[in-house]
Amino acid sequence: MTMKTIWEHRSHDGVQGMYSHASGSAGRDMAFGVFVPDHAPGATLPVLWYLSGLTCTAANVVEKGEYRAACARHGIILVAPDTSPRGEGVADDADYDLGVGAGFYVDATQQPWAANYRMRSYVEEELPAIVRSQFPADFARQSITGHSMGGHGALTIALRNPQRFRSVSAFAPLCAPMQCSWGEKAFSNYLGTNRQAWRPYDAVALIEDGARLSELLVDQGTADQFLTEQLKPQLLHQACTQAGIDATIRMQEGYDHSYFFISTFMSDHVEWHAARLKQHTAHE
Amino acid sequence: MTMKTIWEHRSHDGVQGMYSHASGSAGRDMAFGVFVPDHAPGATLPVLWYLSGLTCTAANVVEKGEYRAACARHGIILVAPDTSPRGEGVADDADYDLGVGAGFYVDATQQPWAANYRMRSYVEEELPAIVRSQFPADFARQSITGHSMGGHGALTIALRNPQRFRSVSAFAPLCAPMQCSWGEKAFSNYLGTNRQAWRPYDAVALIEDGARLSELLVDQGTADQFLTEQLKPQLLHQACTQAGIDATIRMQEGYDHSYFFISTFMSDHVEWHAARLKQHTAHE
Repeated sequence: MTMKTIWEHRSHDGVQGMYSHASGSAGRDMAFGVFVPDHAPGATLPVLWYLSGLTCTAANVVEKGEYRAACARHGIILVAPDTSPRGEGVADDADYDLGVGAGFYVDATQQPWAANYRMRSYVEEELPAIVRSQFPADFARQSITGHSMGGHGALTIALRNPQRFRSVSAFAPLCAPMQCSWGEKAFSNYLGTNRQAWRPYDAVALIEDGARLSELLVDQGTADQFLTEQLKPQLLHQACTQAGIDATIRMQEGYDHSYFFISTFMSDHVEWHAARLKQHTAHE
Repeated sequence: MTMKTIWEHRSHDGVQGMYSHASGSAGRDMAFGVFVPDHAPGATLPVLWYLSGLTCTAANVVEKGEYRAACARHGIILVAPDTSPRGEGVADDADYDLGVGAGFYVDATQQPWAANYRMRSYVEEELPAIVRSQFPADFARQSITGHSMGGHGALTIALRNPQRFRSVSAFAPLCAPMQCSWGEKAFSNYLGTNRQAWRPYDAVALIEDGARLSELLVDQGTADQFLTEQLKPQLLHQACTQAGIDATIRMQEGYDHSYFFISTFMSDHVEWHAARLKQHTAHE
């Protein structure tokens, strides 16, 4: 398991790095960003995963996310994976919402995608093993968040792995991909036409099928151009209400879908996760 | 005096915009960024100018500078000008340190630069008039900061206009451009070979020639690749000591020249300016 350092910069009393490794899931090199706050020698720190949205690489949140001050204050490592495999020979599509930059955090079963688009395995299994072996990460304390397609990723990964994460939040998540054109296009291409195979990748469907979390936090801008057609937080609200999940869904007046929105509420999310990552649990 | 809105996004309880206008100084359209925190109707807010470094446009600090949270907290407008004229017919050079992206905040007197490279007039006179007419800015309360070439700009503009600014700070400024290769190359091209004509554009020379400020704040990373050859904070320290200027020059261990450094200390600088912008002075 070899990892290459692309660059590292000291920032906010820690080190922000960009790294890469040869990924078995993706069949290509994958790059990812990690911020590690200063810490005592030998200490381990809790981990917050941030999954990015359509068209993004790890660089977007690393440059524009404004998470480092809060992560340093609370001693939290932030890991930012890429959104898809990239590089020569990787299948792609001319549209921004399929192919490169649009992995949707699924393991594709259909050609030509199945060869490289295994982002569920990558984010759930392969990259965590890399992070655990290479950084001072306390995997008993993990939380997850993400933006848009990455908010969908965070919600579905947490719903499928409720014991792994202390908390989950999202910025303008794609709440019910089976009920919007982005999701229907991606899932039909990656997973085929049998909609039953889509349900493990849809937060609302997962909750309908019995997956449970105690709580979640979502921020959603009211001026988000994708709110009505794609994101549909009201469907998540309904599903959570029926399932008894304590969902805090905050509609933020005038904010749009950009990093100008994400960066505004990032420190709130880091604080929210920090409070839960600091709680001691019975099995610790 | 017409101004065009390129884009606006709600961010950190305010509005971040990018604007442009036809500049007489530059003979071309010039773009600039402005962040305006929410404020009471009819209220005016103090203004912090941020001058960018070599190769940058206003977009770099707008995306990576992490100033909006602190500016919103203190009710401060931040204005980020471009670093040079741009566009068809504007003289340029193949190197990054001359021509487009490298205006050095001087009014060029030599051809081919003199036609468009009038960044001193632009930043000192033309853009302030635009900002004053278009935004809720209280010009009795202004401060200035900048990075690298823009730190040089901030220091020299403040030294030439001590009554205009309540406070000045800089991130890794070019302290004595007459004594480094970046400055010598730029000034000989823009201003000609008579070094006397360079002195109004060199912070150390301005102080030697009698310009005074009560105090200034500089942050400088110890791992900055340009520290020894180009930036030379020790020359500013010496000049300030001899002139009785209270210079706080903080060497920040392990930080480099990038926005990962700037963003780390940005809130410190905004707080420092805010404290001075809030003071009431005799003439108010």
